[in-house]
Amino acid sequence: MLRFGFDIGGTNIAAGIIDEDNRLIAKSSVRFPRGEGTEVVVRACAALYRSIVEQAGRREDEISGVGVAVPGSVDIDNGVVIDAHNLGFHHTPLGALLADALKKPVYLINDADAATLAEQRTGALIGTNTSALITIGTGIGGGLIINGELFRGGRKNGTEPGHMVLRNGGRHCTCGVDGCAETYCSATRLATDGKAFDCSSAKDVIDAAKDGDEKALELFRAYIDDLGSYIASIVNLLDPERIAIGGGVCGAGSFLLDPLQADVERKCFFETCPRIIIASAGNDAGIIGAGLIVG
Amino acid sequence: MLRFGFDIGGTNIAAGIIDEDNRLIAKSSVRFPRGEGTEVVVRACAALYRSIVEQAGRREDEISGVGVAVPGSVDIDNGVVIDAHNLGFHHTPLGALLADALKKPVYLINDADAATLAEQRTGALIGTNTSALITIGTGIGGGLIINGELFRGGRKNGTEPGHMVLRNGGRHCTCGVDGCAETYCSATRLATDGKAFDCSSAKDVIDAAKDGDEKALELFRAYIDDLGSYIASIVNLLDPERIAIGGGVCGAGSFLLDPLQADVERKCFFETCPRIIIASAGNDAGIIGAGLIVG
Repeated sequence: MLRFGFDIGGTNIAAGIIDEDNRLIAKSSVRFPRGEGTEVVVRACAALYRSIVEQAGRREDEISGVGVAVPGSVDIDNGVVIDAHNLGFHHTPLGALLADALKKPVYLINDADAATLAEQRTGALIGTNTSALITIGTGIGGGLIINGELFRGGRKNGTEPGHMVLRNGGRHCTCGVDGCAETYCSATRLATDGKAFDCSSAKDVIDAAKDGDEKALELFRAYIDDLGSYIASIVNLLDPERIAIGGGVCGAGSFLLDPLQADVERKCFFETCPRIIIASAGNDAGIIGAGLIVG
Repeated sequence: MLRFGFDIGGTNIAAGIIDEDNRLIAKSSVRFPRGEGTEVVVRACAALYRSIVEQAGRREDEISGVGVAVPGSVDIDNGVVIDAHNLGFHHTPLGALLADALKKPVYLINDADAATLAEQRTGALIGTNTSALITIGTGIGGGLIINGELFRGGRKNGTEPGHMVLRNGGRHCTCGVDGCAETYCSATRLATDGKAFDCSSAKDVIDAAKDGDEKALELFRAYIDDLGSYIASIVNLLDPERIAIGGGVCGAGSFLLDPLQADVERKCFFETCPRIIIASAGNDAGIIGAGLIVG
């Protein structure tokens, strides 16, 4: 049977069909109807669903179920989005509303968890039983694979790896705590600190560091030290087989990955250090992961 | 069937019999024969085993197997102690040697993992599927319960929660990294910083803080802030149902626990915060946990 996945973000609703081999065989997206209410979102999703199925030359009865990735906390058992600020969803019974509109079973998942599942089944974490995806963007997100399964948190609240404390008492985080990993390891940190020498984005800083600019190199080395300590914390707690990192800064390739691997190896408590590799499921990871949670 | 547990430490070998209800029904201990080699240790263990079984009025054929907790890294599958510095064991096939001496199946376990298992089955973590034990002593040790089972690390290297980084670039840890949780959250930190105002142990500092000594209170509050951030890191990554803390500083009771719970609640990313409670399996946790790993 085919499965259908939605990746609902604050800008776009992306969606697609996953085949029996976990491949994305059709996809499309529409603008997220911001501020127009839940009913409008559900109608937009239903229209997108039908157009993708039709354009792919498939029938709705070939689809076994629908997974929906959202950027926020979800009550999986009841199909409720607890909080997804970017979508304006708060205690929204999205699962039931979509199930009613699509006449299919609907399953919700946090978007970082969806991406992690996609990496484990089709990407950088394939073959691992215990591993982590860390996504480096405006903030830090991610997910964990433990004992071969997506780990949804001991109380099913998910995982918030960006809010592990890396420099207690340090920079103020949006969550209210001082020193979260997010404040030192996100792309935002590079962009913020780069302003001192006329770099306005993480990419600017990395490009300047590649060109040998001393100030950019100094910032980049401090960033590697922070990111390395952060990843080493996860390694020393969970002893994972592999860590995947995703997000724009990974465009730096081995310029980032080589010193990062060396830094984590130095800080890893165990005799051998797991490999850190770049996430490979790409922008479609949310759609694929959402589709993968369907039975 | 009964099970037998050893808790081998650098000072004593403690051991006992666990009944079908996971209760310790007989125990004893002997001095660890430091520096006398593996054969002497195995003979001491065998003698202790036979004397405990006999004194309890039991027969060896009532014992289904033997678990052995050691302070170090173990290769579970092959029954080899990889490194236990305090015991002088390095790549020591302790499982096979003891199995030969006792004529029983022998299973090895790290001592912090044994204590964690004891807490989950008989103590503070009872009934939990995802939880953690953090033991606060000279260093920081601990273990994780995930999905109802003792988590032995993704690569079976165990877990080293004391070497998560809490203040990157901070105090130098014995492991070589600057800023490990161990350097800020151990009893050693209280004893070290307390020297500045004539306290020579963690207990001295806590007693002085209880008496209202300003310097001791200042240190104690800084310690709660560090320990709170450390526990919040584990909470935000794993969303556990409960956290147990053990070790001498827990003698402070609610004087420690109340401000710690409040600090972690402030730093917890989720709507509700798990309870932090004091470990209850006590000094016998190693023996009990070792016995519990027997089939």
